[in-house]
Order: sequence, then structure tokens, then C-alpha cells
Amino acid sequence: MERLRSLILTEGRVLEGGALLVDSFLNHRVDAALIRDIGAAFAGHFRVRKYELVVTVESSGIAPAVMTALAMGLPLLICKKSASRVMNGEVSQTPVRSFTKGDTYMMTLKSSYIPDGSRVLLIDDFLASGDSAMGVRELVRLAGAELTGAGFVIEKTFQGGRIPLEDAGCDVFALARISALEPEISFTD
Amino acid sequence: MERLRSLILTEGRVLEGGALLVDSFLNHRVDAALIRDIGAAFAGHFRVRKYELVVTVESSGIAPAVMTALAMGLPLLICKKSASRVMNGEVSQTPVRSFTKGDTYMMTLKSSYIPDGSRVLLIDDFLASGDSAMGVRELVRLAGAELTGAGFVIEKTFQGGRIPLEDAGCDVFALARISALEPEISFTD
Repeated sequence: MERLRSLILTEGRVLEGGALLVDSFLNHRVDAALIRDIGAAFAGHFRVRKYELVVTVESSGIAPAVMTALAMGLPLLICKKSASRVMNGEVSQTPVRSFTKGDTYMMTLKSSYIPDGSRVLLIDDFLASGDSAMGVRELVRLAGAELTGAGFVIEKTFQGGRIPLEDAGCDVFALARISALEPEISFTD
Repeated sequence: MERLRSLILTEGRVLEGGALLVDSFLNHRVDAALIRDIGAAFAGHFRVRKYELVVTVESSGIAPAVMTALAMGLPLLICKKSASRVMNGEVSQTPVRSFTKGDTYMMTLKSSYIPDGSRVLLIDDFLASGDSAMGVRELVRLAGAELTGAGFVIEKTFQGGRIPLEDAGCDVFALARISALEPEISFTD
């Protein structure tokens, strides 16, 4: 994913508070061909394990996750950030703190869409503190399944989100691992 | 899109208030191969016109829109339902009433990502009253561009959303056109 790194360096902007703005190609304006290649890269890494389901969290994870699900031949389940009235009951929820929005939301899904005992792969755009990923893990666990893999387009290694996921036995894989944002964006690996 | 109609008939559920629940294959649990075929169908219809950009609205429109953008070789712009702090200013907004959530939100995008004078294609999951699509049209207009096409996975024709879009000169195309939900789901065309 050299193109991804190159785009992060040329178009990424570091904001106050440690946020990395990549909205020219990843999560506002979206480069669809890049996202297809991202899905193929995740499918390449995770193919040796057996997964029954890809999950993501609305809304920035959806584009890479649907491309990954397509490349792996799996269905996708999108965790919602609130329950809409058309969800019609039957939901599981857990509170999650949002790094970019500065508030707490109720991550929501229908457990009936997670096969009992299945192995689940999370795909999301960012791994920072890991709060969102651990929320997904909790909802998957409540449904009687296990989050065994987690792929992220960008990991900010200095926020430590990988640690609780790996401690929980999850295969964590990131396409671009950023070790520092200041004085300049630096990659690790 | 016979498979889409078949899934609507076998898995769709009609809720009180006129909402159609299709969350087993379209907007919660997502059938990635179906979404790829939906993108190809939109690319087939809209290819004879020239578009510079695909736009959608988070979050249910993202999966079909990114597949359409990929099939057409165009970038995608995702309208947000609120401004996150990482958007960092420079945004255009318009208020939109949400049919499924029963509230009003501020549809938000960065006008700088819409090329001046460009022709823009909206892709979304549902066409109901058209409020959301007309909100997109207004934001595109504010950016100095024009919404000239709009593709929807499912149109509820009895809610009339097609009319203001066509009156505004937009090519409106839906893959499944539902003329009634009661006493049973009925299609038109």
C-alpha cells in the first residue's frame, strides 16, 4: 500500500488534538479505486483464517469494509451509532467514546445477524485508542460469536489501541502504521 | 435487478408509518455481491451522460455509491449528517428532515471537493419524499455545480420524491420501484 502512504504524506493534515485529516481520499471525498485495493489487501492478509462475517462501524468504515467483504465473499454487518426507529427492536447496544466527535454514542446492532459461534473480522478506517473496536468486540461477544481479526486502513500506534485487541486474541493488521504526527508524519514497519 | 426485487419480497418487512425494513441485505447486514451488481446497474444506466463526481449521504448510501463510483471510474463524495470536529471548517450545510429517524439534521460537505461547474450523480438507498436528495441538490448548487442524475436502489413512488428532482432537470433512475406497501409490496414498471 505505497500509494496509501504517499497520499497520507501529501494530502493528510494534522489537526490540533492529534487528529489526522484524510478526508480528500478516505472518508469524505473517497478514491474508489484506492478503496478497492484496500479491500484486496485486507483479503490477502486475512484469507488464511476462516471468517464468517465482516463487521464495520458507520460511517467511515463502510467503503473499505464492503470492498473487503466482496473480495472475501462474505456478508457485511454495519454497526450503527444510534438505533433508528426502523430497526424495530431486537438490538444489542454498548456505549463507545468517539475520539473525533468528542462524545459518547450507543453502538448498535441486531445480534440475530451474527451467526452463533462465528469468527468475525472487523474492518475500519482508523485504529486509535481502540475504544470503537473493543465496542464491536463486546457486541460480537454478546451475540455468542468471537472477534478474531481486525483490519484498519490507518493505525496511530502511539494511541495504543492494538494492545487490548491483541490481548483479547485478535489478529490486528493495519495498512499504514503511523508512529508520530509531529514534527512530521512518520510510519513504522 | 430481479434478485433485488426477490429479496425485497422475501425479506422486506413493512413497518407502521410506511417504512420498509430491508436491513437483512441492504443497509445493516449487507450482501456485498448484490451491492456490486447494484453499482454495475447504475453504471450501465448513467454511463451515456458525463459525470465528474458521485455523491451520497451517510450512511446507508455509501456501499452502493462506492461500488457505482468504482464501476464508473469516478471519485465519491459522502455528505455527512453532522460536522465532526475533524472537518476543520470550510463546510456548506443545509437542513434536511429524516424520514426514518423522525428528526432534522444538518447535511454537510466541503464545497471544495465539488469541481466548479461539474455534473454530479447522486446515489442513495431510498427515494421517498425526496427531502434528502433535494438537500444534496442544494449543496451541489451552492458549490457551483449541478445535480444532473440521481440513482436509487429502492423508490417508494407513492411518496412523490421523483417529482421535484425531475422538475429540476435531474435524470432519476431506480432499480426497484415500489408502488404500494399495503396490503402487499407491489412494484411498478
